[in-house]
Amino acid sequence: MSHNSFGQLFRVTTWGESHGQGVGCVIDGCPPRLPLSEKDLQPWLDRRRPGQSIFTTQRRELDQVSISSGVFQGVTTGTPISLQIRNIDHRSHDYSTIRDAYRPGHADLVYDLKYGVRDYRGGGRSSARETAARVAAGGVARRVLGDGIRIRGALVQIGNVRIDRTRWDWASVDNNPLFCPDPAAAIEFQALLAFSRKSGSSVGAVIEITAEGVPPGLGAPVYGKLDADLAAALMSINAVKGVEIGEGFATAALAGEDNADEMRIDDGNISFNSNHSGGVLGGISSGEPVTVRFAVKPTSSILVSRHSVDRDGREIQVSTPGRHDPCVGIRAIPVGEAMIACVLADHLLRHRAQNPNAPTIARLPLE
Amino acid sequence: MSHNSFGQLFRVTTWGESHGQGVGCVIDGCPPRLPLSEKDLQPWLDRRRPGQSIFTTQRRELDQVSISSGVFQGVTTGTPISLQIRNIDHRSHDYSTIRDAYRPGHADLVYDLKYGVRDYRGGGRSSARETAARVAAGGVARRVLGDGIRIRGALVQIGNVRIDRTRWDWASVDNNPLFCPDPAAAIEFQALLAFSRKSGSSVGAVIEITAEGVPPGLGAPVYGKLDADLAAALMSINAVKGVEIGEGFATAALAGEDNADEMRIDDGNISFNSNHSGGVLGGISSGEPVTVRFAVKPTSSILVSRHSVDRDGREIQVSTPGRHDPCVGIRAIPVGEAMIACVLADHLLRHRAQNPNAPTIARLPLE
Amino acid sequence: MSHNSFGQLFRVTTWGESHGQGVGCVIDGCPPRLPLSEKDLQPWLDRRRPGQSIFTTQRRELDQVSISSGVFQGVTTGTPISLQIRNIDHRSHDYSTIRDAYRPGHADLVYDLKYGVRDYRGGGRSSARETAARVAAGGVARRVLGDGIRIRGALVQIGNVRIDRTRWDWASVDNNPLFCPDPAAAIEFQALLAFSRKSGSSVGAVIEITAEGVPPGLGAPVYGKLDADLAAALMSINAVKGVEIGEGFATAALAGEDNADEMRIDDGNISFNSNHSGGVLGGISSGEPVTVRFAVKPTSSILVSRHSVDRDGREIQVSTPGRHDPCVGIRAIPVGEAMIACVLADHLLRHRAQNPNAPTIARLPLE
Amino acid sequence: MSHNSFGQLFRVTTWGESHGQGVGCVIDGCPPRLPLSEKDLQPWLDRRRPGQSIFTTQRRELDQVSISSGVFQGVTTGTPISLQIRNIDHRSHDYSTIRDAYRPGHADLVYDLKYGVRDYRGGGRSSARETAARVAAGGVARRVLGDGIRIRGALVQIGNVRIDRTRWDWASVDNNPLFCPDPAAAIEFQALLAFSRKSGSSVGAVIEITAEGVPPGLGAPVYGKLDADLAAALMSINAVKGVEIGEGFATAALAGEDNADEMRIDDGNISFNSNHSGGVLGGISSGEPVTVRFAVKPTSSILVSRHSVDRDGREIQVSTPGRHDPCVGIRAIPVGEAMIACVLADHLLRHRAQNPNAPTIARLPLE
Repeated sequence: MSHNSFGQLFRVTTWGESHGQGVGCVIDGCPPRLPLSEKDLQPWLDRRRPGQSIFTTQRRELDQVSISSGVFQGVTTGTPISLQIRNIDHRSHDYSTIRDAYRPGHADLVYDLKYGVRDYRGGGRSSARETAARVAAGGVARRVLGDGIRIRGALVQIGNVRIDRTRWDWASVDNNPLFCPDPAAAIEFQALLAFSRKSGSSVGAVIEITAEGVPPGLGAPVYGKLDADLAAALMSINAVKGVEIGEGFATAALAGEDNADEMRIDDGNISFNSNHSGGVLGGISSGEPVTVRFAVKPTSSILVSRHSVDRDGREIQVSTPGRHDPCVGIRAIPVGEAMIACVLADHLLRHRAQNPNAPTIARLPLE
Repeated sequence: MSHNSFGQLFRVTTWGESHGQGVGCVIDGCPPRLPLSEKDLQPWLDRRRPGQSIFTTQRRELDQVSISSGVFQGVTTGTPISLQIRNIDHRSHDYSTIRDAYRPGHADLVYDLKYGVRDYRGGGRSSARETAARVAAGGVARRVLGDGIRIRGALVQIGNVRIDRTRWDWASVDNNPLFCPDPAAAIEFQALLAFSRKSGSSVGAVIEITAEGVPPGLGAPVYGKLDADLAAALMSINAVKGVEIGEGFATAALAGEDNADEMRIDDGNISFNSNHSGGVLGGISSGEPVTVRFAVKPTSSILVSRHSVDRDGREIQVSTPGRHDPCVGIRAIPVGEAMIACVLADHLLRHRAQNPNAPTIARLPLE
Repeated sequence: MSHNSFGQLFRVTTWGESHGQGVGCVIDGCPPRLPLSEKDLQPWLDRRRPGQSIFTTQRRELDQVSISSGVFQGVTTGTPISLQIRNIDHRSHDYSTIRDAYRPGHADLVYDLKYGVRDYRGGGRSSARETAARVAAGGVARRVLGDGIRIRGALVQIGNVRIDRTRWDWASVDNNPLFCPDPAAAIEFQALLAFSRKSGSSVGAVIEITAEGVPPGLGAPVYGKLDADLAAALMSINAVKGVEIGEGFATAALAGEDNADEMRIDDGNISFNSNHSGGVLGGISSGEPVTVRFAVKPTSSILVSRHSVDRDGREIQVSTPGRHDPCVGIRAIPVGEAMIACVLADHLLRHRAQNPNAPTIARLPLE
Repeated sequence: MSHNSFGQLFRVTTWGESHGQGVGCVIDGCPPRLPLSEKDLQPWLDRRRPGQSIFTTQRRELDQVSISSGVFQGVTTGTPISLQIRNIDHRSHDYSTIRDAYRPGHADLVYDLKYGVRDYRGGGRSSARETAARVAAGGVARRVLGDGIRIRGALVQIGNVRIDRTRWDWASVDNNPLFCPDPAAAIEFQALLAFSRKSGSSVGAVIEITAEGVPPGLGAPVYGKLDADLAAALMSINAVKGVEIGEGFATAALAGEDNADEMRIDDGNISFNSNHSGGVLGGISSGEPVTVRFAVKPTSSILVSRHSVDRDGREIQVSTPGRHDPCVGIRAIPVGEAMIACVLADHLLRHRAQNPNAPTIARLPLE
């Protein structure tokens, strides 16, 4: 058991706080002889890095990742891979205002209740900064998965604005700073964000991630189900309040015949006519794209003044000025992708361990 | 790592299939000297047992639980508790029709893809029957939690019919066979179910579970977060496709100031003005009621004929007559409660291990 | 974490006490499609069964194993295998003499100190009876390993009588009730045991187990070393007080050049000139036979009267009449073999998970 | 599961190689609010540091430990503690001679067989350098245990020279560079080492470690036994080939009445007349000092020429000049102490989780 580790065979242990020396992780169980260098990981970190548009925090974090062990002459050796990202923007803040205040929506209070102590600088361990280590680990996980598996995320809702799925265009995701697959919605998103920022407020979001090329057979009934691990992975990300797979909550309103995906034979291979299941049946991947969504709450660090209490049991007003993300959901996309990558890499190894001679089946065609 | 174990310190390992000798579980790590007998567990199993109304499968399963180890002279001894529930209704079916068929929406295909073999009798390991063992384990978990923590579930949606939350009445839950907290909606639910059954179809559902009296401090950042473990626990239940906590997906549409729960001092204690968070902040319980919802897909075993394929690669039509639940969500309520109980018991022990001298704080008042 | 589970991917969870309903285990992670029936397991249990010679306890235990799940139509399905062995010899003893007494050398006192309660009937969970479940699990592990790996144990010391290794004959092991590989020593062993039994005393023993055919590459540095797991596996057996591998403690007296096994090329393959390492280098199997020894203390249940105390804090004399093994080391041989088999099966799966494309090397020749 | 993690609740994950950027570890699960700084850890690292006498390697390694996370304002916060020790002595060696050679007694060959790649610089991950991270973690574990538990090790055998236990003097351990508790034997040890070094050879050793003040109740039957975890912990240290507890292998030659420790009432408390068990009964600590011994093989890096093979399948002669420890057993003492500390800290937390209300018993008096 480990509070700060994730995965069973591809196992990631993260450490670090917002304003300490840095954050990092140790990856244990990575297969040997995979080509790996900092160059393979940095692009993923760059996607998560703040300050890339006016819609994310303007804090300056270089997020330069370095590999401290486990790689020799350009390939993984099978021994633990230690990744480190130094903190560079810990200017000597005056923390006196938040040191004793419990900010609404933050973990301030519960850390104190649990541990009796908390590193109040920038949220300490509960800071979104910890997710930089996840993104680095996700880069290694992608190496394990290989090029046959493609994991992509997109923002499908901000506040009460949803995309029009008929306009879904993956190219659009890379072309706007909000990772929005619907160019028209992207404009609405930006307007909403601008308004929210001006109001000193914040908004929530919904992110959708799809993994294509996932081979069938990943996932282990009944407590190691692929979707159970995906749910835990996404729910462990800061500010996430809901997770669904395939039709998700909408499945409740469906009739059995509309929900169960029919099958056919296509060119000699088994193929599905639909993917309401989101690529997972009985906890095991079906070969269809794995599709998950998760909801991110609005940033709790807002300018709007709120009622709260402090460590001394006094009622106070809390307002949080500063360089905060108006919508943490935006930067959660690379984090969600990384978590999906880690779960899939873990289950790939788990499947291989138990089923070395699993009957070779033709790869189900991607949609 | 264990595919079929759940929890870290209060650890449940289940075994068994639909039509084998029975199902059961081994609970490891239960604290010693807790009073425990079959009589403490049977009521929970009785709630899950099929055939109690016309709205659930008419299969006859007594679900009589027996304790095979770990209890001596009426109390737990701290050693593993083995619980067993024999299968009694495995009449000698003719399985020839489903032996080679892959039923849409079922795990038939993926078990074959993963293992190259599957116990096709009644769904084998992927049968909802496995959840009987979870419910038994949940009964032990409730003993660990004690009477101060109350875990209750209710059906809040069937098909596209939702309850009216202003009419929520816990007494109603016990007074109708659908665990519905809104007496008016209960009637609508029944009409919908009757129609669905007559059509040879099925419907999905949404269940809400609340745990009151949960002490603050449970949950361990960042991969052992209480909500991450709750999500995995619920997503591991058959047919579950979505999980949310507190406001859940609705949080996306909220502004920061509307979502973050304000605090006040109430009679000397810290108190929250609202519970949008669902009782969990930063992965740690706040002392507020823990509130989760999960979506259950419509039963895949339906009379309506569907396109599919068989093991020999032929296209077939599949229709599943028989004694199936028209809405598996109904019987998922005691299962969901049991999983919540197991997660809380596990985190209670985990919290205690690390924080023996956690500052004693006044228990936050229940709403 | 689990107090009563062993192994990571081939994971065994045992339950049960000496005088409850029975003992059993759940095996999680077993590969699918291995032929398995009770007939494959019973012979190993029969070897461990008491009452087979005058040198073991005369208790009557049939030790009939039954498979309750995880096997369908004669093959494993990849789902949890539940094995059960009913207790049949729990005659209604009068336990009043030992109920409150702390027998020297037993776990009576420490169970009470730890749990505040103990099942005093026959030692409860600390009874050697628990090892029947290990032996059953070991039978399944042997199936995973296949016929290419042979695991055999022998008694190499009883009291202060050691075998003469130059007379080692595996056939002898099967020909005497003491599993002694030296026919001459077997006679001395029997004389010593007869004397010890007549004196109402008991003796300790040393067991050696060899696993031949173990492929190179098993074991994972640095805390999942093959020898670290072997040491834990053997030390977890009741009454074991020491474990060594290869030269073991004798290695301390060796010079570096005498201890390090030289290598040569033999028929194109790498081969070792000696096996002081016991088949494990740096925690990884070398392809040479894996050789371990463990020391078993003399039975604590003896007729000779001993000073002790009781639950009420009174000084008492304790003498244990009854049907006890004069040397528990004898029946520890099948148990030790089973534990070795479980460790190797576990590491085989672990190795496979991480190293699917490990360079194929010619199998090192057996000595 | 994690190849490079140790412990369940007090969980240490180490990383790093001999000649990479450094070594380090992440400690997860450490209780909060323990005073901790680098100054608490450095003394333990200094004891392990090479080059402190002519009897250890003359490599210059400062082994300066730094805390990168998990400590705030001088106390632990309950979040992961990242410890790092930079490598400073990686001079640009010419590794051409060992790059392709498989040194007898080393892990060179098996790393290649397992991973198909190895970091040959200084032994890579199999280097004793990894143990620096263990020693650092052990320093934190000692903080968890508090001052009531004292863990001390001593060298009791080098080559075929054993100490005289009647001359045991703990003060002597600190007064000679060999950690020898018998001043007379210390002189013999030094003579033997000097001779061995001059011969270009090496010698093995036996180390004994005692933990006093261990409360009764630590350890969990049956696979989480305290002695099983101690055995794994010590066997995981490089070059260790045997582990024993209490009488260990000598127990085999004892009669039951001589081995089982009698009990008495002493000043109202239960007390033992002897400690043949080494402080562990049935896998649970008895309150007596926990006493373990482990055997360390002679260093494999020796000047004496040996037969071996290389990666290309050629037979070669290997001789290893350089700054190697003539007896790695000497520096294994702080490492063994650290591992014992980690095991005890882990079991303290595990015990606390399951047994919050364990009956308070008077601490058994130290001998």
